[in-house]
Amino acid sequence: MASNSFGNLFRLTTFGESHGPALGGIIDGCPAGVRIDESMVQKDLERRRPGQSKITTQRKEPDAVVFHSGIFEGVTTGTPIGFTIQNTNQKSKDYSHIQNSYRPSHADFVYDKKYGFRDYRGGGRSSARETVSRVVAGAIAKQYISPIAIKAFVIQVGSLKLEQPYQELELERAEENVVRCPDPGMAEKMISYISEVKKKGDTVGGVIRCVIQNVPVGLGEPVFEKLHANLGAAMLSINAVKGFAYGSGFEGAAMLGSDHNDYFNEDGTTKTNFSGGIQGGISNGMDIYFDVAFKPVATLLQSYESLTNEGKIETNHGKGRHDPCVVPRAVPIVEAMAALVLADHIMMAKTSKI
Amino acid sequence: MASNSFGNLFRLTTFGESHGPALGGIIDGCPAGVRIDESMVQKDLERRRPGQSKITTQRKEPDAVVFHSGIFEGVTTGTPIGFTIQNTNQKSKDYSHIQNSYRPSHADFVYDKKYGFRDYRGGGRSSARETVSRVVAGAIAKQYISPIAIKAFVIQVGSLKLEQPYQELELERAEENVVRCPDPGMAEKMISYISEVKKKGDTVGGVIRCVIQNVPVGLGEPVFEKLHANLGAAMLSINAVKGFAYGSGFEGAAMLGSDHNDYFNEDGTTKTNFSGGIQGGISNGMDIYFDVAFKPVATLLQSYESLTNEGKIETNHGKGRHDPCVVPRAVPIVEAMAALVLADHIMMAKTSKI
Amino acid sequence: MASNSFGNLFRLTTFGESHGPALGGIIDGCPAGVRIDESMVQKDLERRRPGQSKITTQRKEPDAVVFHSGIFEGVTTGTPIGFTIQNTNQKSKDYSHIQNSYRPSHADFVYDKKYGFRDYRGGGRSSARETVSRVVAGAIAKQYISPIAIKAFVIQVGSLKLEQPYQELELERAEENVVRCPDPGMAEKMISYISEVKKKGDTVGGVIRCVIQNVPVGLGEPVFEKLHANLGAAMLSINAVKGFAYGSGFEGAAMLGSDHNDYFNEDGTTKTNFSGGIQGGISNGMDIYFDVAFKPVATLLQSYESLTNEGKIETNHGKGRHDPCVVPRAVPIVEAMAALVLADHIMMAKTSKI
Amino acid sequence: MASNSFGNLFRLTTFGESHGPALGGIIDGCPAGVRIDESMVQKDLERRRPGQSKITTQRKEPDAVVFHSGIFEGVTTGTPIGFTIQNTNQKSKDYSHIQNSYRPSHADFVYDKKYGFRDYRGGGRSSARETVSRVVAGAIAKQYISPIAIKAFVIQVGSLKLEQPYQELELERAEENVVRCPDPGMAEKMISYISEVKKKGDTVGGVIRCVIQNVPVGLGEPVFEKLHANLGAAMLSINAVKGFAYGSGFEGAAMLGSDHNDYFNEDGTTKTNFSGGIQGGISNGMDIYFDVAFKPVATLLQSYESLTNEGKIETNHGKGRHDPCVVPRAVPIVEAMAALVLADHIMMAKTSKI
Repeated sequence: MASNSFGNLFRLTTFGESHGPALGGIIDGCPAGVRIDESMVQKDLERRRPGQSKITTQRKEPDAVVFHSGIFEGVTTGTPIGFTIQNTNQKSKDYSHIQNSYRPSHADFVYDKKYGFRDYRGGGRSSARETVSRVVAGAIAKQYISPIAIKAFVIQVGSLKLEQPYQELELERAEENVVRCPDPGMAEKMISYISEVKKKGDTVGGVIRCVIQNVPVGLGEPVFEKLHANLGAAMLSINAVKGFAYGSGFEGAAMLGSDHNDYFNEDGTTKTNFSGGIQGGISNGMDIYFDVAFKPVATLLQSYESLTNEGKIETNHGKGRHDPCVVPRAVPIVEAMAALVLADHIMMAKTSKI
Repeated sequence: MASNSFGNLFRLTTFGESHGPALGGIIDGCPAGVRIDESMVQKDLERRRPGQSKITTQRKEPDAVVFHSGIFEGVTTGTPIGFTIQNTNQKSKDYSHIQNSYRPSHADFVYDKKYGFRDYRGGGRSSARETVSRVVAGAIAKQYISPIAIKAFVIQVGSLKLEQPYQELELERAEENVVRCPDPGMAEKMISYISEVKKKGDTVGGVIRCVIQNVPVGLGEPVFEKLHANLGAAMLSINAVKGFAYGSGFEGAAMLGSDHNDYFNEDGTTKTNFSGGIQGGISNGMDIYFDVAFKPVATLLQSYESLTNEGKIETNHGKGRHDPCVVPRAVPIVEAMAALVLADHIMMAKTSKI
Repeated sequence: MASNSFGNLFRLTTFGESHGPALGGIIDGCPAGVRIDESMVQKDLERRRPGQSKITTQRKEPDAVVFHSGIFEGVTTGTPIGFTIQNTNQKSKDYSHIQNSYRPSHADFVYDKKYGFRDYRGGGRSSARETVSRVVAGAIAKQYISPIAIKAFVIQVGSLKLEQPYQELELERAEENVVRCPDPGMAEKMISYISEVKKKGDTVGGVIRCVIQNVPVGLGEPVFEKLHANLGAAMLSINAVKGFAYGSGFEGAAMLGSDHNDYFNEDGTTKTNFSGGIQGGISNGMDIYFDVAFKPVATLLQSYESLTNEGKIETNHGKGRHDPCVVPRAVPIVEAMAALVLADHIMMAKTSKI
Repeated sequence: MASNSFGNLFRLTTFGESHGPALGGIIDGCPAGVRIDESMVQKDLERRRPGQSKITTQRKEPDAVVFHSGIFEGVTTGTPIGFTIQNTNQKSKDYSHIQNSYRPSHADFVYDKKYGFRDYRGGGRSSARETVSRVVAGAIAKQYISPIAIKAFVIQVGSLKLEQPYQELELERAEENVVRCPDPGMAEKMISYISEVKKKGDTVGGVIRCVIQNVPVGLGEPVFEKLHANLGAAMLSINAVKGFAYGSGFEGAAMLGSDHNDYFNEDGTTKTNFSGGIQGGISNGMDIYFDVAFKPVATLLQSYESLTNEGKIETNHGKGRHDPCVVPRAVPIVEAMAALVLADHIMMAKTSKI
């Protein structure tokens, strides 16, 4: 079934696998008249790019996007924006040992069962390489939704966790270090820890927080397309994500209503923001914030047991170039998906009233 | 924008507000040939019904569903199943004091801003009363997806939390007590605590866990319609939900890959199940399990400050009949939404191969 | 598959069969703030109602609609509008003779093959009775799209055909006679002819023309959601429709470009209107007009041969109450579907530009 | 609004304008396991290609498609199939005279009004160049739906019209001549006529008939997604189409029911086929056939009056290379769109029963 599209009115459809000639997508529904700075797209691609630091995979992919349509003289025309990114660094031979075997906690097994066979040259469509198209579309969406600002950053790697509320952090500092944590001291600890984990050929999980500012009141639909439900679906569609929580999140479950209610100021803002900027599924103008939990990547540079397609357990040893921790590179992906949701809801909100 | 539908191929569309004459919906896409026991629908409605115990709202709603189409001689015909539930217990006067005022952490304020005005008689469309239609549709979906079994239960109320893995619980015991916790000792504590909270006119949050068993391999689509992304969106669309996590969830973020990977047995099952039954967005045949966090309900039977539509803060006092804690009644709603997601994915999976 | 919805942003979903307890639907996406005169809904239902004249079926159905939600104090609230129409005149026994037999040119045979069985009490979901829900939704849409005006009327019954261009007709006269033809002389001939056909237990086809006035420039999407493509799909979804043509239609195929081009006036209107008010799929502000061809109804009050579900040919004799010609009653259905398309495109057009 | 997709489960999304660097699309939902012969795709592109004969535009476009994903070792993998076609023959200067002027019966005027400005280098997104992507997708769909066979051919050019029923024609002869008419004598007349029209710088319309054979019983959904409604929408989305009729079409409107009904044979086939292979929106296993009317192309190589964007009428003279009659090149486009509809319905039909 057609399932590679995201969004209702502002919609991204993506194609491409980790080992094919190219990936890309179509942004359909972007309104006419959005001024596009292509360098902002490239900048977000750089933030997602492999090989950007010592704590990411050393695979090199320039990840240069080519736009084929929908932008004329630097402005969107209202027609679909098609784009491609060439895969320049395919090394199928890296993966030849896994053709008949299912790696643990990968999608190899389920793909074979679902489709009857699979492109065995790598993760194929299940590879996080697919997210390169999301970052492109998200960078277009960001320019449409401006001045809404989306800032994601790392708050946890393994058990190293920032405990402060985001209001006490200097969010712009996140981009000053390779792990993208806004607290420089914690960032240093996280980087050391990831380096250690990497040395052992192991991987580790983490948590990204995302804050969305300057949101107008009224984005979100009351029932199934609640703003946070769409944000949650967006985040859970990113590879390796295991959880999503917004506002008070799981901690809200332990609270009393008398503590949790956000009382109004006369201007319609609220004194607290346990609601996370969304009430009844609709933005109330306060900051939206949410957390996204990522599991440790399944690909280890260690020995591990696989299942062959003939039902035997065999021992393999991971090789190649992989991320010891995905959260630093996932920061722009979280932002991109959030931007797509916001762009979609801005368009939907135009149709609420006559 | 049309936003009151859920699902791609097996799709529920709902209508109705807390204070209108009736609620209802259309289940579109249910295949022909599903044998329907209507008493199972009514049974789930009873589990969601207000007034079912001392720890729920004392409002009385019989919640009897009437099916208008799509079922002939006890079997689905493949045509849409239309149904209604009358609102028999509307008391608009209960709400007259809030006509010009926005209650804290309710949707009053955002509705007025989004739509220009609102049906001030109650929560309107933002009321959890809407979920009655979801329970009806979920009960139909459960009969379609059988023998897949969906079991939800309460694991946390306030800070009272069950710490055992679900495998160590007798899940069927959850329905033996009014709080729907499978551990009788903990259930008793939760009930006492909710009764206390209720006496003070306060409310409290909680967490529901849901386990899905007998799932075939291959449900879920690789990228945007990942099985867990759709489950997450389903849960986040339920009133008062603040978070969703599946498998290892937020705890997975703290783990190493070497601990988190689920190694295979020769039959394709896995020795552990940190994946939560889903790999790369596709079911692997192991149990699916996830947690859903609910905030404390915003309606308190206490004094509170509201904002008037003229920008003044005023003091009101909550009255009427409200739930001190939603999780006991939300258990069948979580199950219903999970059933809708599974039904949808079973249909989608039919189209994966030629 | 869920296939009982029409429209993208302004969307109608219908349910109900000819012999179930009720039909109805949900209008999802109607913006807040539309003032609704329910008597206009009832008036269109009267125009579609069986038993309204000597040339329609004598079946009596009061066809009273009940709205359950989405309208508060006479104004739409932005939430879904649920409605039902009771079936008060079910006589299953009229149809008992066809339980095991497939009538010619009916959907009996294909339903059995598609779904494995069918509700044999009548046309079931394939009955034109389903269009009662469309007329309700169309009447709501008409009030939203005002001052756009939609006028449908009969231009052909059998080989009796009005040859004048619609500009030479007094369109409002169509509602003065029971066949809904704006030319009184032709109307009389058509009525006599239908009466004759009816006496023989036979049926006859016809053509409806529809003119849409006061259309703003810019409705329609360039490629797959061209305004006329959506109008065509809408019309072809009506029972018994065999063809759709707009503007110059099939006659345009015989023309030269130098005759067919519509030259501009300085105000942006055009001197001719072979385009039918749509260029490149987008309205240009001129009248939209199109023709819809209806076949003769398959149900005859004569002897005919059926196929049994055991592969035998048997002779039956039609009985019951059926329309000798559907076009008079189809006029409000054509208008309703056109109104739904226009409402949808007005909403879509709100998102074309930033 | 996202409006550049076609199909529900087997879905094509296209991008690209006549004067951008490339066009292309994504085929999303094609099941895994379809063996793909890429030369069949190229063959259909050749049939659509400009410059293929003396009666088409002399513009040269090699129209070579590149597939980027979704096909592995000659078989579809179930993942989206992304493809591009480079625009190698852009000559923007040909169009510079129309930057500030709206050509008659083109989309220039409505685009400017709808989007606030337009890519003035040519038809942009409204150009029939977009259909190159449809032909690619249709050629993939044809391979999926095999042995269903789709044969389109020209039956009318101007007032030259083939009157025989298609059963009396040798359909495969259509590809033996450049106008694609299966009757060699008529083909010759049509070719001469088009050549004459071309000499005058004029254009002429025409009609394509399409026959679909080997269709299984049960494709199509009862109400809004009737098989013929989707075919109609598909055809009406093709540039220059003004009308669609299937089975008895507009002639059926003049018939009596006693003549129009298709009586069964014992094997479930019918003695006649006025129904056009579809009853109640669902295929009955007989041939599906329909006609598509095309207007004469608006671009003339003659003098004509345009409207400037300042509201003045000015005289221009058409230049460049244009088709005097689109129907010969539209034959593979009609087939492609029909193939997409059939592919979609085959997938939908998989979900009708449990």
